[in-house]
Amino acid sequence: MTRKEKIAQLFGVWVGASAEGAEVAPHQHDMEEPVLLDDLLPDGLGQLTRPFGTAPVDPALAALSLMRTQGRIAAANRFGIPAVAHEECLAGFAAWGATAYPVPLSWGATFDPALVREMAAAIGRDMRAVGVHQGLAPVLDVVRDARWGRVEETIGEDPYLVGTIATAYVQGLESAGIVATLKHFAGYSASRAGRNLAPVGMGARELADVILPPFEMAVRESGVRSVMHAYTDTDGVPSAADDELLTGLLRDTWGFTGTVVADYFGIAFLKTLHGVVGTFGEAAGAALAAGVDVELPTVKTFGEPLLDAIEAGIVPEELVDRAVRRVLVQKAQLGLLDHDWTPVPPALEGADTTADPAALRGTIDLDPEGNRELAGRIARQAVVLLRNDGILPLDPGTPRRIALIGPNAEAPTAVLGCYAFPVHVGGQHPDIPLGIDLPTLREALQAEFPTAEIVVARGAGVDDAGTEGFPEAVALARSADVVIAALGDRAGLFGRGTSGEGCDAESLALPGVQQQLLDTLLDTGTPVVTTLLAGRPYALGRAADQSAAVVQSFFPGEAGTAAIAAVLSGRVSPSGRLPVSVPRHPGAQPSTYLAARLGHASEVSSIDPTPAFGFGHGLTYTTFEWSDLVVATATTPTDGEFRLALTVRNTGDRAGSELVQLYLHDPVASVVQPLQRLIGYVRLDLAAGQEARIDATVPADLASFTGRNGTRIVEPGELELRLGASSTEPRLTARVVLTGTVRQVDHRRRLHADFEVLPPAAH
Amino acid sequence: MTRKEKIAQLFGVWVGASAEGAEVAPHQHDMEEPVLLDDLLPDGLGQLTRPFGTAPVDPALAALSLMRTQGRIAAANRFGIPAVAHEECLAGFAAWGATAYPVPLSWGATFDPALVREMAAAIGRDMRAVGVHQGLAPVLDVVRDARWGRVEETIGEDPYLVGTIATAYVQGLESAGIVATLKHFAGYSASRAGRNLAPVGMGARELADVILPPFEMAVRESGVRSVMHAYTDTDGVPSAADDELLTGLLRDTWGFTGTVVADYFGIAFLKTLHGVVGTFGEAAGAALAAGVDVELPTVKTFGEPLLDAIEAGIVPEELVDRAVRRVLVQKAQLGLLDHDWTPVPPALEGADTTADPAALRGTIDLDPEGNRELAGRIARQAVVLLRNDGILPLDPGTPRRIALIGPNAEAPTAVLGCYAFPVHVGGQHPDIPLGIDLPTLREALQAEFPTAEIVVARGAGVDDAGTEGFPEAVALARSADVVIAALGDRAGLFGRGTSGEGCDAESLALPGVQQQLLDTLLDTGTPVVTTLLAGRPYALGRAADQSAAVVQSFFPGEAGTAAIAAVLSGRVSPSGRLPVSVPRHPGAQPSTYLAARLGHASEVSSIDPTPAFGFGHGLTYTTFEWSDLVVATATTPTDGEFRLALTVRNTGDRAGSELVQLYLHDPVASVVQPLQRLIGYVRLDLAAGQEARIDATVPADLASFTGRNGTRIVEPGELELRLGASSTEPRLTARVVLTGTVRQVDHRRRLHADFEVLPPAAH
Repeated sequence: MTRKEKIAQLFGVWVGASAEGAEVAPHQHDMEEPVLLDDLLPDGLGQLTRPFGTAPVDPALAALSLMRTQGRIAAANRFGIPAVAHEECLAGFAAWGATAYPVPLSWGATFDPALVREMAAAIGRDMRAVGVHQGLAPVLDVVRDARWGRVEETIGEDPYLVGTIATAYVQGLESAGIVATLKHFAGYSASRAGRNLAPVGMGARELADVILPPFEMAVRESGVRSVMHAYTDTDGVPSAADDELLTGLLRDTWGFTGTVVADYFGIAFLKTLHGVVGTFGEAAGAALAAGVDVELPTVKTFGEPLLDAIEAGIVPEELVDRAVRRVLVQKAQLGLLDHDWTPVPPALEGADTTADPAALRGTIDLDPEGNRELAGRIARQAVVLLRNDGILPLDPGTPRRIALIGPNAEAPTAVLGCYAFPVHVGGQHPDIPLGIDLPTLREALQAEFPTAEIVVARGAGVDDAGTEGFPEAVALARSADVVIAALGDRAGLFGRGTSGEGCDAESLALPGVQQQLLDTLLDTGTPVVTTLLAGRPYALGRAADQSAAVVQSFFPGEAGTAAIAAVLSGRVSPSGRLPVSVPRHPGAQPSTYLAARLGHASEVSSIDPTPAFGFGHGLTYTTFEWSDLVVATATTPTDGEFRLALTVRNTGDRAGSELVQLYLHDPVASVVQPLQRLIGYVRLDLAAGQEARIDATVPADLASFTGRNGTRIVEPGELELRLGASSTEPRLTARVVLTGTVRQVDHRRRLHADFEVLPPAAH
Repeated sequence: MTRKEKIAQLFGVWVGASAEGAEVAPHQHDMEEPVLLDDLLPDGLGQLTRPFGTAPVDPALAALSLMRTQGRIAAANRFGIPAVAHEECLAGFAAWGATAYPVPLSWGATFDPALVREMAAAIGRDMRAVGVHQGLAPVLDVVRDARWGRVEETIGEDPYLVGTIATAYVQGLESAGIVATLKHFAGYSASRAGRNLAPVGMGARELADVILPPFEMAVRESGVRSVMHAYTDTDGVPSAADDELLTGLLRDTWGFTGTVVADYFGIAFLKTLHGVVGTFGEAAGAALAAGVDVELPTVKTFGEPLLDAIEAGIVPEELVDRAVRRVLVQKAQLGLLDHDWTPVPPALEGADTTADPAALRGTIDLDPEGNRELAGRIARQAVVLLRNDGILPLDPGTPRRIALIGPNAEAPTAVLGCYAFPVHVGGQHPDIPLGIDLPTLREALQAEFPTAEIVVARGAGVDDAGTEGFPEAVALARSADVVIAALGDRAGLFGRGTSGEGCDAESLALPGVQQQLLDTLLDTGTPVVTTLLAGRPYALGRAADQSAAVVQSFFPGEAGTAAIAAVLSGRVSPSGRLPVSVPRHPGAQPSTYLAARLGHASEVSSIDPTPAFGFGHGLTYTTFEWSDLVVATATTPTDGEFRLALTVRNTGDRAGSELVQLYLHDPVASVVQPLQRLIGYVRLDLAAGQEARIDATVPADLASFTGRNGTRIVEPGELELRLGASSTEPRLTARVVLTGTVRQVDHRRRLHADFEVLPPAAH
């Protein structure tokens, strides 16, 4: 291959599908110069960027558009190599008409990797069907500051939860033949004060013990084939130029063999935002040297600037060779280099793609009933009941007057995060239908409570300053038997929402005047069920204690309002658990549960960061008794394992799910440890009166941490294995002892506790 | 010496002076067991803790009390060694009746090391006079999060400003024979979310480039003889157990030869709060091994626990030998081992200390007129005029009605920080007089504006929720020609104030309902001069733009209200500059000016951290013109120096001070750099029409930073030397070039730009 041909495999071009099924058109992104495909294609093309997620186009016509473009790409270069088509799929395929699943915070709330795996397999199947090869998900950033707008895209504030759920997602996506992409590698979530892309100040140990473990788990256990660098710099070193991270750790230590792709515009940012290089050619060289293989979304530094830099001897061509080898190996794995490769995607096989494209319209359904059912199952399992004074469930057989009040009462897209197509792209096309059915909370409630009279007021906007709607809201609240306050966020991009990429928050106060509205509703005396459709946790002020109930939902997707309604009525027993703490106070951030003793309330600070509802918290409509802890192995060497067992019994009169959470407390360690950290969990669905016996095997490896000298070690000494219903509700504690000497562990260490449940009630 | 005798030299005992001049009594601190001096003294005693700062006692009687105790200590051990008596002296000697100088943030605002040196010499002289040997100051923590309660104890948010001012303080204190103590070494100010003692997450580079430079400067340039470890852990390693920091860097690299003392209770905290050791004996061993020599305030781990640990072979006795050698060398330097040593302090020389102690009462004045004048000079120079629509100065000759409104209008101690004796100790003794004259703002204004009618209302408390005082405040405001809103903090300890140790803030909103009060006053239409007596910067909401003027004072000490009044009247031309940014919004913290490009406002975050008033900002009553920049040396090797010159002319009709601030902007560096950082400053006092020519020599060393491999380097390339009146008001920019190769620099690097001013108008 010529130098230009090699380099052409290393970048993408951002295209939008043609609404007429014609070839894709280069996307005129305002951060980029227009790109002329005709000039590029003779040398080949590495990636096609967002052929579905750029414009609202019927899926069959978009698939046709992509197909034609792939044909042209393959035909234009002398090797016949098509592009890898990649798409966003954060919470569903980012295409018009595709299923909008709950956002990752809701996956975290399910604590159910199998369910997430099933979802990702369904997402992957739909993407594969229309010709997409790679998905830019999942997000493995561990929440460090909930003010960050992208918190909705994360799985939560605990690395073990993030790692297990994200790994399951990757397994599902890859099972469908889609290249999954771990992102953002690494540190992005710790952007200072939650301000998007702001510098990350964390130290090497925090990075190693909090940020990196989910990536390590996914690399080792999921067969993931791509990784995306983070935008941020950590302690002055941008991830995109960090060879220790992208090569030393990822490849040399963890054994990753896939491709590393740039976050959009991230290589150019090395010059324009980070200032670690002076030219785009140097930016390309720095990224290649660090281990970035593919520039996305389009060519900015890997084109002329890189060519010139190679010419000038600034960038060694071997770096290009290394990257192109990885890209071509992946294309070969994908079958793109096969002799019988065809641009026709599975969903168009057998279709007449030469006839009038209009005939294809509507022939591909990206939101079939099975998807919707699955989205509903996840949403139902992800609703977290934070507080209940007994008002819930509301018997749907009892006629009552319900005042549904708040900015999210009748907002169809209130269930969606910022990467859902109707928000991400649809917002720019208000004249185009949403493409999927998004029942409002009002509609869902009316369906769930057919005999209820439901009166509705907006009260206030999500983030408006106006309170002129308060009097009507108060009047309705006074007239009703119960108030359902529908509050929370509006997802959007770069300041157009209250949650989402670039929509960071100053504090964790509810946006706009929603806290005032909520307080006003509480003042009416009518019981208030505070219901949140949100992308991050918010402090609720007095409502945390004075609401009759608090129902937390993190953007639950297209079937989300029905899920909330079903929990309110009791048709579904709530079973979600908080993947992030819900703070007591709006300020004093950052603060997550994963903190050392001095990171929690102490006598030496006037600020008490104790959350209103802690990580892992979630109520049910039944009760559970935990008993009969037996510690079969209470002492084990630093390379051994502990064994223990306990019984959990549903002592209530209805079915419910208990989440057995296993936290490690290490009272004395050579470096400061978090007061507790999650090292395992198992979800139990138990019928009324049913009990389960859980056997747990806990490898000593789970007590490892990064020691003073920077290596990962297990130290001898006493530990507490705390079995709890949440981080704030320990139920049974096993005091155990690690014996022997300090042991160094490596990347082959065990990552999981094993749980055996009898009878098998867990999933 | 026996093992017990050696160890006895390594700890202190907390004592309180006797109000009757008898021996000091052990202080019953609620965190400690009582200590029996009779049991301890036969082995000797290393330190006496806070003989003046613990109880309100007449200075002469306290000196007598200390003298008698020292006599007893020396007599009780077979070597006749007395203790080192140490005291707090953060902003003045922490003794009853001693001068309360402005707090360190005010020193920072003066940008005047010579003045701070003079103050510290005066403080040291007073301490030395009454028998104190060591002062636990200055604080060199660089502000990283202004929510932290101890911000009032710091010099500001820039390492160069902190380093230069703190070094001057040490020079002054040491010039009086007092052992100065650099604290807190290192990282404390970056406690997460500003919560006191919360873990510090910063990386090694931020530590090296932001936190450590002030300490390095002070060690190299001041002859400091003691350092105190920080309470916090940084990335998991508590400073008190960090041998790389306390020995590797401080002693082996920087060449420090004095003593390292514990922050109070800090060694025990290794067990109780950090959990890095399991016993107090191990805590003692870890601290000794790291390089801590003296346990303060009293013996908790260095007594029986350490003895037992040596006995058991857990702690090598050599560590004790090393520490005791350092302690005894220091005692020798102090003359405490001299044959002719006497416990009689200078101030009691010639006094009849055998007669009735009551006769001595009042014979030692710790707040003589010279001190008070000096405190006033600093205070006047530290007042920062942030905004002025022309209302100031208020001609005192014009009769007018002034409404002085706010919680700090008539609060005598509103000028004091939490380490000032009347706040630190006096609060617990409300029946004892304050000991120093503290005119209220009302009194100072009445003195400054004798013809004005001054009407006063509290309006609200500093941090009360009540607004019942608003109507009266509004009525007075409406009736007046001008409103002076007296707002800000009440210093206190551990939650008893709104600023001070343990008094952290959730956000940078004014405490209590003060913002509401201020807004209400603005609504009256009467011009409002917002006047802050505070320990940290606060967002002012609309008052930042709508006040007629904003006068910022950081706890200006006993002569502070007169200084403010003098600035208001124009008798004094304001000349202070902000040592910390004043934020626009109360949330979105932390944020300081010392941030990389992505730490500032950007298109990728909805949060704009641009401050209302930036670092270095401060108005005067005159105008200056900057001109005639000549860059004599614009290109120099990486070990060379730049030379440039400029002219500053007072173009107004009255005298004033301009602060020439030199900022470095490094557009391309191998690790991400702050957008700008202060590398020099010079203060010019210019009469109306006067001009000064400034020659500056800027060593390339000032462009050094910690490179990718962890060593400090100077890289070739272009730089901007920005000469500005503040960080947000660049006036003249020199574009210069460093040539040659990357150069590694060490701790002998040059730390200062040299300024020559002609005619000599600078100080």
